[in-house]
Amino acid sequence: MTTHPFDAALELQTVTDDRLRGRTHPAWKNVVGPFGGITAAILLRAIECQPDRIGDPLALTVNFAAPIQDGEFDVGVQRVLTSRTTQHWSSTLSQGVSTRCTATAVFATRRETWADSEAPMPTVPTPEDIPVTPPAPEFADWLTFYEMRLIEGAPPASPQDASPTSRTTMWIRDAGARGLDHAALATLCDMFYPRIFLRRGGFVPAGTVSMTCYFHATAAQLAQVGDEHVLASAGVHAYSGGYFDQQALLWSRHGHLLATSHQVVYFKA
Amino acid sequence: MTTHPFDAALELQTVTDDRLRGRTHPAWKNVVGPFGGITAAILLRAIECQPDRIGDPLALTVNFAAPIQDGEFDVGVQRVLTSRTTQHWSSTLSQGVSTRCTATAVFATRRETWADSEAPMPTVPTPEDIPVTPPAPEFADWLTFYEMRLIEGAPPASPQDASPTSRTTMWIRDAGARGLDHAALATLCDMFYPRIFLRRGGFVPAGTVSMTCYFHATAAQLAQVGDEHVLASAGVHAYSGGYFDQQALLWSRHGHLLATSHQVVYFKA
Repeated sequence: MTTHPFDAALELQTVTDDRLRGRTHPAWKNVVGPFGGITAAILLRAIECQPDRIGDPLALTVNFAAPIQDGEFDVGVQRVLTSRTTQHWSSTLSQGVSTRCTATAVFATRRETWADSEAPMPTVPTPEDIPVTPPAPEFADWLTFYEMRLIEGAPPASPQDASPTSRTTMWIRDAGARGLDHAALATLCDMFYPRIFLRRGGFVPAGTVSMTCYFHATAAQLAQVGDEHVLASAGVHAYSGGYFDQQALLWSRHGHLLATSHQVVYFKA
Repeated sequence: MTTHPFDAALELQTVTDDRLRGRTHPAWKNVVGPFGGITAAILLRAIECQPDRIGDPLALTVNFAAPIQDGEFDVGVQRVLTSRTTQHWSSTLSQGVSTRCTATAVFATRRETWADSEAPMPTVPTPEDIPVTPPAPEFADWLTFYEMRLIEGAPPASPQDASPTSRTTMWIRDAGARGLDHAALATLCDMFYPRIFLRRGGFVPAGTVSMTCYFHATAAQLAQVGDEHVLASAGVHAYSGGYFDQQALLWSRHGHLLATSHQVVYFKA
């Protein structure tokens, strides 16, 4: 049986107690280096597979300092502190002596508490009522690993298609029916083409500088989602001085908020 | 002339090239350790005062791993990478051999670009039309350093006051007419009492686990705001399994979005 390309990209060998080694996967190559969403998943997975890890991911911040070159990379993980219910981690992704990414993560043991959501899933057609959006052939291989059904905010083809808002909403799931886990969810948080394209009506240079994911679901809840469609919606608060912030919310198709994610993105326009 | 208590809390002595020493300021004491907003400002200031720092703060993430004890603390700063327009930093706040906080920050040189905001300031009365909300006497000293004018979402006095939403919106400014800078703005991002109080109608144990601030304004733009009121509004997407996420937006009184901020907060209810 062939390894799913998501799991293949996340394969890490232990070098020492606090260092793992991976290799860039050609199918996840993006405009400059690997797709940031897969890098976020790798950094999360490096912590998840530590033997003394407790609980589920609660918060992950990844800073993209420099492009990752094709080939091997090392992930250094450091357990900062473990309390009764939370565990703090720092990590870096490096190649040779050069740090490419830094990350921090909080893991937590969740308890039954009072719960509520104030971010209801938008009213949208079911995934079965929306056609699959075929990935544009000029785009990266990794897009074919996902089945996307765009509800609003399709990539603009020309400046005439410039949108007055940065909103894209879509149903998305793994095209290979791989089940959902926190690493896959972190990748889904980054699944939106740069919002500046939508506002300007075409390609402009852009790249994520820093991304934070907050996970609202446990591993057991994500396992229940399985390979069902997830509703993902992203927008922007402000574009200013060469940077914009993107906010993404992801729900299960039954309306359970799975993750909220924020990123700041460099652009040139 | 007496040092403003905000600046007094941010006083740091250089110990070595990559280590600064500070001391907790009694007036900023909160329920457990210092107010998180002042800790965020200290971690940002430790980077701001590095001689090789470039640009203005763009993104700051602070992870609160353990309570800071009264007394001295060290801030270790590490410059990870400098590109043409951005600079990545990692830092830690420690006491003895114990790490209390980790942080990452991105600084950036901003350029004139196409700009827009999709988060207009809500329509609210002017600060002059809203009375000053006196800080409750049982609360911490540091609240008296701010002039708050609550528009919605006042702290509930009893379970009967439980609110159906987590929204608080207020005008806020430094009570001592200290001008605005990025460190002060980071503190303002954390100026909301825990949102769970609002939903449950009273005090429950709660504390910020991780906070991220994105800065949308340059130092020059913040200097223009000066000591004018800032509109600050916070809400929550979801409460689940002992944690909730808070999102805060801050605008100048003229409607310029200054910062967006996100945090994940532990609670017991």
